[in-house]
Amino acid sequence: MQLTGHNYIAGALSAEGADTFFSVDPRNKTAGDLPFHSATRGEVDRAVVAAVAAFDAMRRYPSSKIADLLDEVAAQIEALGEELLHTADRETGLGLPRLTGERGRATGQIRSFAALLRDGAYLRVIINSEQPGQPAIKQMQFPLGPVAIFAASNFPFAFAVAGGDSASALAAGCPIVVKAHPGHPATSELFAQAISAAVEKQGFPAGSFSMLQGRGIDAGGWLAEHDGIEAVGFTGSLRGGRAIHDIAARRPRPIPVYAEMGSVNPVVITQAALAARADEITGGLVGSVTMGTGQFCTNPGLILLEDSGASRDFIASVTEQMAAAPEGVLLNEAVASGLDTSVSQTAANPQISVLTGGAAGADSEPFCYSNTVMQTSAAAIRTDDRLQVEHFGPVTLFVLCDGRDDLRATVAALEGNLTTTVHAEEGELADIGELLHQLREKAGRVIWNGFPTGVAVVHAMQHGGPYPATTAPGTTSVGMNAIYRFMRPIAFQNVPDALLPPALQDGNPLGILRLVDDVYTDSGL
Amino acid sequence: MQLTGHNYIAGALSAEGADTFFSVDPRNKTAGDLPFHSATRGEVDRAVVAAVAAFDAMRRYPSSKIADLLDEVAAQIEALGEELLHTADRETGLGLPRLTGERGRATGQIRSFAALLRDGAYLRVIINSEQPGQPAIKQMQFPLGPVAIFAASNFPFAFAVAGGDSASALAAGCPIVVKAHPGHPATSELFAQAISAAVEKQGFPAGSFSMLQGRGIDAGGWLAEHDGIEAVGFTGSLRGGRAIHDIAARRPRPIPVYAEMGSVNPVVITQAALAARADEITGGLVGSVTMGTGQFCTNPGLILLEDSGASRDFIASVTEQMAAAPEGVLLNEAVASGLDTSVSQTAANPQISVLTGGAAGADSEPFCYSNTVMQTSAAAIRTDDRLQVEHFGPVTLFVLCDGRDDLRATVAALEGNLTTTVHAEEGELADIGELLHQLREKAGRVIWNGFPTGVAVVHAMQHGGPYPATTAPGTTSVGMNAIYRFMRPIAFQNVPDALLPPALQDGNPLGILRLVDDVYTDSGL
Repeated sequence: MQLTGHNYIAGALSAEGADTFFSVDPRNKTAGDLPFHSATRGEVDRAVVAAVAAFDAMRRYPSSKIADLLDEVAAQIEALGEELLHTADRETGLGLPRLTGERGRATGQIRSFAALLRDGAYLRVIINSEQPGQPAIKQMQFPLGPVAIFAASNFPFAFAVAGGDSASALAAGCPIVVKAHPGHPATSELFAQAISAAVEKQGFPAGSFSMLQGRGIDAGGWLAEHDGIEAVGFTGSLRGGRAIHDIAARRPRPIPVYAEMGSVNPVVITQAALAARADEITGGLVGSVTMGTGQFCTNPGLILLEDSGASRDFIASVTEQMAAAPEGVLLNEAVASGLDTSVSQTAANPQISVLTGGAAGADSEPFCYSNTVMQTSAAAIRTDDRLQVEHFGPVTLFVLCDGRDDLRATVAALEGNLTTTVHAEEGELADIGELLHQLREKAGRVIWNGFPTGVAVVHAMQHGGPYPATTAPGTTSVGMNAIYRFMRPIAFQNVPDALLPPALQDGNPLGILRLVDDVYTDSGL
Repeated sequence: MQLTGHNYIAGALSAEGADTFFSVDPRNKTAGDLPFHSATRGEVDRAVVAAVAAFDAMRRYPSSKIADLLDEVAAQIEALGEELLHTADRETGLGLPRLTGERGRATGQIRSFAALLRDGAYLRVIINSEQPGQPAIKQMQFPLGPVAIFAASNFPFAFAVAGGDSASALAAGCPIVVKAHPGHPATSELFAQAISAAVEKQGFPAGSFSMLQGRGIDAGGWLAEHDGIEAVGFTGSLRGGRAIHDIAARRPRPIPVYAEMGSVNPVVITQAALAARADEITGGLVGSVTMGTGQFCTNPGLILLEDSGASRDFIASVTEQMAAAPEGVLLNEAVASGLDTSVSQTAANPQISVLTGGAAGADSEPFCYSNTVMQTSAAAIRTDDRLQVEHFGPVTLFVLCDGRDDLRATVAALEGNLTTTVHAEEGELADIGELLHQLREKAGRVIWNGFPTGVAVVHAMQHGGPYPATTAPGTTSVGMNAIYRFMRPIAFQNVPDALLPPALQDGNPLGILRLVDDVYTDSGL
């Protein structure tokens, strides 16, 4: 494919801005020679205006037509072939095996949404038939309208231009305007080509999809404050997500912002678990912390243990293996410098001991950071919320607690997270229940005897959690329910069947599961 | 019952504040002699701290225990007997027939939530069983935590201390701290006594419920910004709701605000409908505009017609009937002065003609306002958004459009509303579909050949809509789905059955409907 460095606005290339930036290979820090043009305010406006116009057509489409678009997007992504993998690898350093897997995940979730649409139950049809003194009321979910998507740096396929936010918003029936991540502009352009091709082939209006490049915060701000945007999906840092949240909340007409942001993913390991399988947990934990050079929102960054000889041995063993583990490549300069800053600030805290690592890569090296283990006390975590900050990289922090009560008090002081994990033994079930359900209040997903990295794209997955993990604790950005972020219920009162979508018609021509007079059924009225 | 004028904080009376106010009878503007004490910042804090402590117990309760509390609340409300009706009538002027009906609505919706909890499907259990390479993931809905409720003035039973917001938050399993509306403090205290009695009788922690009095905005602001509050339910004015939204969005840890605010509930009437049943529509419209002295969020305040002789005759007829209709009593001084201000501002707009009314009540009269009809052009509505402001009272505004295209363009320029309505004939179905679905984009409920006042409390009801109707278009404040505003999904990965709530256990001991491996079933795994 021919790369242009331009923005993709409703099917047309556009490069009006003077501000340009380049794709950088994190392994050798060399920049490509194709300039990518940051979108101008005018280009942002055109993309949104086109999305608003596109919505007037898209909102009439049956679920099946949107499903066809999604399947076509998946096929077009696959048609990008090896070039996609090599381009992304050059821009992110994530490696071909990981990227190959992530491509399967990205196309898989797009196709899962297509299947969800064809099934139809996702419309959540609820009907109360006419009764004496009560009109017939029928409701289902409808698309919200144009959605702004902010792509993440760390999943160039699964959380970026054609990632989960884009797939769920398109599946909902919403046009999307994607702000690409500046860390992988060439990869983003390939995805823009794939989606644009699918949009054209399936006869969708060109404004159904636009992709804006931009290295600064300007384009994102213009997008979030544009009156034509009805919702925002964001995956990235706490600082970035909070900024977009605040812009959207201050609008004359506020809109929902679904930002998935920072998380330290606390892990509690009991003494019994250490006694039974310290080696296994050590290996699993080191693997989880260093996987993808630690650049996962589910990276286990805070490990809580009761103080004991076994715990200190375990920490020593993890430290040793972390020190010995190969140093990975970080995504880009922003990630490298951000990690250096955050670890330096934490390490400078007098209550922190650095057990290994804590060193930024040299100028001559790839973007990297040494695998880092730090240790602190439970009292420190409870009293200094700076110690709950996310270190986005191969870094973890051990917290030693003075017994079970101190551990429980520390869990109570945790901020919101995407996940919490407990390692314990079957024999402890009677004692552990209270702790487990205390951990559930702090997260969207609770893991038993596992590690938080690895987020299965299944219906039951919940990838979300209380702030600062997200700005919308009732929602998920992974799994089928992600679609509801971009839909809203509309009820029809006494409206004749001929004017209703098939899903709401008395005879249930689509044969979908509906809640009719408080009973779930796929029969007609 | 003995009224005290105190705040109800976790089962105890409290009156620490020096600021007091009185219950006023809107019919004769005389104040009662019992001083009601506005809550202090310290009292707000104590209520929230007690709610946080209560949540630690409530979050462990099975749905059935919460259902028992709800049924007890309904019974305790009924046990208040005639005193409740007379107290509310004296404070609101709504009249005994309306209040008797509203009491049934309030207890009915509380009991509907109890039934929902006993059925269990509301937990939205989703299970993906363990597969090769994929852990078992099980999710369901859990309560968010302590919720702040802001009671409305116009429904002293159904949207106030024990109204829909309170019922749905309690049903979700959340402790509630209710800011009572200063327009009916004695009624509020009776409800506080009823709920407190139910809380005690069912063995719930005292902090499960608190009720704060307050005539100013201070207590509400302290409540919304308190770190212990996890969500806000609000019913009231656009100004009040936006202020609470903004406070919550600026918190260090933002929380969701579900504010149901202003709405003008546009009604489109076709020429064919006028030709077929102008008299019937006239009567229905006048009844809907004047019902409850127009103090409904679903009051039809904007009527769109194509300009014609028939339309002008219709407007004349509505105007005549509005002028002849008895003048109702307004709830309180704030409503009366607010209505006077908003109608005066609209009437002063050079594009507005006042056809009848537009006069505030005299000092010697009850709080009241003359039944008011105004008229403007479609071009005016499209270009001046001040003309889409809600007039909270017996007021409606006709908009004459130059034909169908002008009507369609005007509908496109409408702001968000709770409802939109179309009156048309069966013979027009082929022409009207596009307009109907254009109207759906502007509202949460679309009504065919009816009037928007009268909101059935059924599962399929959607009482919400795009801003400024609400701050959360994906949610409803009426009907069973109101519960999801106060819940969030939590997923459990590989957690042993013994540690899971019964709803998530493999054998499905509760026998509830669950989505298991993408199939809805009430069988066990």
